[in-house]
Amino acid sequence: MKITLTQNKKDKPEANKLGFGRHFTDHMLTMDYKDGAWQEPQIVPFGNFSMHPATAVLHYGQGIFEGLKAYKGKDGSVSLFRAKDNFIRMNKTAERMCMPKLDINLVMAALIELIKIDADWIPSEAGTSLYIRPTMVATDEFLGVRPSHTYKFFIILSPVASYYANGLQPTAIMIEDHYVRAAVGGTGEAKCMGNYAASLLAANIANERGYDQVLWLDAAEKKYIEEVGAMNIFFVIGDKVITPQLVGSILPGITRASAIDVLKAEGISVEERRISVDELEQAYNAGTLKVAFGTGTAAVISPVGKIGLHGKDLVVNNNQMGTLTTRLYEKITGIQNRTIADPFGWVTIVK
Amino acid sequence: MKITLTQNKKDKPEANKLGFGRHFTDHMLTMDYKDGAWQEPQIVPFGNFSMHPATAVLHYGQGIFEGLKAYKGKDGSVSLFRAKDNFIRMNKTAERMCMPKLDINLVMAALIELIKIDADWIPSEAGTSLYIRPTMVATDEFLGVRPSHTYKFFIILSPVASYYANGLQPTAIMIEDHYVRAAVGGTGEAKCMGNYAASLLAANIANERGYDQVLWLDAAEKKYIEEVGAMNIFFVIGDKVITPQLVGSILPGITRASAIDVLKAEGISVEERRISVDELEQAYNAGTLKVAFGTGTAAVISPVGKIGLHGKDLVVNNNQMGTLTTRLYEKITGIQNRTIADPFGWVTIVK
Repeated sequence: MKITLTQNKKDKPEANKLGFGRHFTDHMLTMDYKDGAWQEPQIVPFGNFSMHPATAVLHYGQGIFEGLKAYKGKDGSVSLFRAKDNFIRMNKTAERMCMPKLDINLVMAALIELIKIDADWIPSEAGTSLYIRPTMVATDEFLGVRPSHTYKFFIILSPVASYYANGLQPTAIMIEDHYVRAAVGGTGEAKCMGNYAASLLAANIANERGYDQVLWLDAAEKKYIEEVGAMNIFFVIGDKVITPQLVGSILPGITRASAIDVLKAEGISVEERRISVDELEQAYNAGTLKVAFGTGTAAVISPVGKIGLHGKDLVVNNNQMGTLTTRLYEKITGIQNRTIADPFGWVTIVK
Repeated sequence: MKITLTQNKKDKPEANKLGFGRHFTDHMLTMDYKDGAWQEPQIVPFGNFSMHPATAVLHYGQGIFEGLKAYKGKDGSVSLFRAKDNFIRMNKTAERMCMPKLDINLVMAALIELIKIDADWIPSEAGTSLYIRPTMVATDEFLGVRPSHTYKFFIILSPVASYYANGLQPTAIMIEDHYVRAAVGGTGEAKCMGNYAASLLAANIANERGYDQVLWLDAAEKKYIEEVGAMNIFFVIGDKVITPQLVGSILPGITRASAIDVLKAEGISVEERRISVDELEQAYNAGTLKVAFGTGTAAVISPVGKIGLHGKDLVVNNNQMGTLTTRLYEKITGIQNRTIADPFGWVTIVK
C-alpha cells in the first residue's frame, strides 16, 4: 500500500462543534478498479476528486456505501465496531448493483492503517466517535446504461458528536402510506445511493407535519411496517419484542442485528416477522404497545415517543425513553466504547 | 451568460466511429445553485469537475437528468426535438427529488447558445445526431441525509450514431418477474439516477439468457406490464394499439407521447391502460398479438421481435419489423430530421 502523508495538516474542530459529517480528517483511502481488478490501495491527503462530466455515477447512480464508527477509549486505545460485518454487507450490496467485490481482509488492513495515521482526529468526549464512510462509485466516462467497467473505492473519516444534541429525546415518526421507499425485488436491502434520494420527499413532508422521520410501509400493500427513516424499527407489544422480518426490501442493519443478539443474551427472544399497521394500532388501543425504538449506526438506539397515523398520534410510553431502550443503548454503546466487556467479538482493537 | 471559449479544440471522431455517449464536444454549460437561487449560467471549455469526496450526490444519489437530441438538416440547419418538454419533465423530476426547478426559458436559451458554439460537432450522416444530456447533481459537502442546499446543473453534448448498428433489427425482451424497477409511490416516473442503477442486474441476467432488454412488471402484483429496459412499450392486439397507462411507476416518455400523437393524427387511437402478462399471452395464443415496439430518445422506435416468458418465446410478427412500426419510425425521425413537415410544433430551429 502506497502512503503519501499530507504536508498541510488541518486545524481540528472543537469537540462541541463537531456536528455530523461536516469535518474530515487529513487523509483518505482510495483504490481504483480497472481491467477487471482492484489496483493497489493508497492513503493520500484528503482532497477533491477530478471527475469527467460523463462519469457514470453522476448519471446512473451506480454507487454504494457503508457507515461505521471507531471509538477512542479512556486509555487512549482505538477500536472499531463490527467493521468486517460492514464490508460483508458492502460486498452483498455490490453484487446487487453489479459492482466488483472487495477483498475484505485487504480493506480492513487498509482502514486500520488509515485510522492509525489520523488517530489524533478521534474525539474522546462522551457520545463522540470517528464516523467512517467507505464508498464505491462507477467511474466509466460513458453515457450508455450498463454496469461500469471502472470504479473508485474510497474511505473518508469524519469526527462526529453524539447524534442526540439534546440527550436521548424520544423521536416522533409518521406512518407514510403514499410514498414508498423500496419494493421486494428492488434495491431496499442494498445500501445503494438511490434509496436515500428516493426517501427525501417523504421525510420533508413528515418534517413539515412536525415529525422527525418517516415510518415506511411495504410497497405492495402499504400494510406492513418496514423501517423508520434510515433506521430499523423495534416494538415491544405485551411481553414480546418484535421487529420486521428482512423480506428483501428492508436494510439488514448491523445495529439491528446487534440489538437482537444483546436481547437474546439477556434471555429475551425477538420475533422477526411481518407486523401490520393494524396490529400496531390494535396493540396501542389495547394498551399493550409498550416500547418502540429505532436502531442505526448514527444514532445506535433511538427511542420513539410518537407514531403519527392518519392524523392522530400513538404516544408510546408517555413519550419517555423506556427502561429496555435505555438498557440496550447503554449495553451497545458500552461495548462500543469498551467500558463494558464484549462477549460477542464485535470489537477490533486498532491501537 | 458568461462564455469562455476553449483554446484547445479537440479532434472530431469519424462518423463511422461515433458509437453512443463516448465523445463529447468542446464546450459545456454549467450553472450552480446556492443561497436559494440559480447563479449565472456559463459556457466553458469541456473539462472535469473538482468534487469533494463528501459531495452529496456521490453518497445519496440526489441527481437527475434528461436526454434529447439536436439534428443537422440537409441544408445545414440545426434543430431541436421537443426540448422544452424535456425541461418541463426535468422540473417535475426535480420536485419529486427535492431539487430546485429550472427557469425553462433561460435554460433553453443557454442550450441553444451552446449548440451554436459547438454546431460543427453535429454529424449529418443518416441516423446520426447530437445527443444532449442535461444533468443536475447535489453538491453539498456533507454526509447528513437531507436534500442538498447546493446543486450543479450542467449540459454536455455528444455526437452519436444511429442506435441500430445493424439497421432496425427487432429486439428480444424478457419478462422479468423477480426483480422490480419501481413501485407506485416510488421514483419510477422521475428521471432520477437511482432508477438506472437499480435496473442493471436484471438487464445483465436478461443478456446472459440471450435477450437484449428486460420487460418490467408492476411491483405490487408482478402482473401488469410497465416498460421495457429504458423505453416505453406498445402492443398491437387485434386492431387496437395499447400502451401501459402512466400509473406513477412508469417514465412518461416524450417519444411515447410523440408516438401516441402521430398515431392519433392518422386516426388510430391508442388505449392507455393496464395490460397484464396474461392478456398478452392470451393474445399471442389467439394469434391477435400483431406488433410490439419500444419508444425512447436513443432508439426512437425499436421493434420487438421476441418476448421471453417463463422460458418460452412469444415471437411477434415473425421477428420482423412491421409496417406500423416502420411508418412510425419514418414519421418521427422524418420530423426530427426535417425531411417531412412538423404539424405538431415539436421542432425548434437553432440556426
